[in-house]
Amino acid sequence: MLVRRVTDVKQDKVQVEGAKGARIRWLISKSDDAPNFAMREFEIEPGGYSPYHSHDWEHEVYVLAGEGAVVSQKGEAPIKVGMTVFVSPGEMHNFKNTGQETLRFLCLVPHQKD
Amino acid sequence: MLVRRVTDVKQDKVQVEGAKGARIRWLISKSDDAPNFAMREFEIEPGGYSPYHSHDWEHEVYVLAGEGAVVSQKGEAPIKVGMTVFVSPGEMHNFKNTGQETLRFLCLVPHQKD
Repeated sequence: MLVRRVTDVKQDKVQVEGAKGARIRWLISKSDDAPNFAMREFEIEPGGYSPYHSHDWEHEVYVLAGEGAVVSQKGEAPIKVGMTVFVSPGEMHNFKNTGQETLRFLCLVPHQKD
Repeated sequence: MLVRRVTDVKQDKVQVEGAKGARIRWLISKSDDAPNFAMREFEIEPGGYSPYHSHDWEHEVYVLAGEGAVVSQKGEAPIKVGMTVFVSPGEMHNFKNTGQETLRFLCLVPHQKD
């Protein structure tokens, strides 16, 4: 069993093209011998966003703090604390901070095949 | 894409033997066509607990509110908001509320094979 404080986990800047003001922590991952999926925490600064893209795996998201929006081909939906987002495999999406505080959410993904 | 308020999701009492004062919401699950794993929210009342048991799948847990403890063969660790717990497949565990407020956490699990 592993018990951790989130703030003890190393945080990295999201360096991928199309991201602005976004940081990531891998809270539970392959390196912990998690067999199937990984838990990441994202923080996005006011005015920041994650890239608008798609991939062949899903996202399961829980919003922890702040206000923002999730964008897909179908339009834009507001998100805030206590909301969940499910993004299907292959669906275009991005997350953006539309508020004055840091937008913070969990985003879980299945492990990528090696 | 599915965007939901947690409070719009039906909450059920945890009926399994060895549980007390525990409620569950299936926030994202197979019925949403999630391909690999499910996101559940648990609420445990002061003095309540989940059963002390093991199973052949893992838990990935994020504590949202309240104070409690997670128990395993190795002992007991306190948990509170902003902490994560990874329980390995096969590991004995339970969660209990040791505080005065509702203990609330996410607990993600891989889909069970049919």
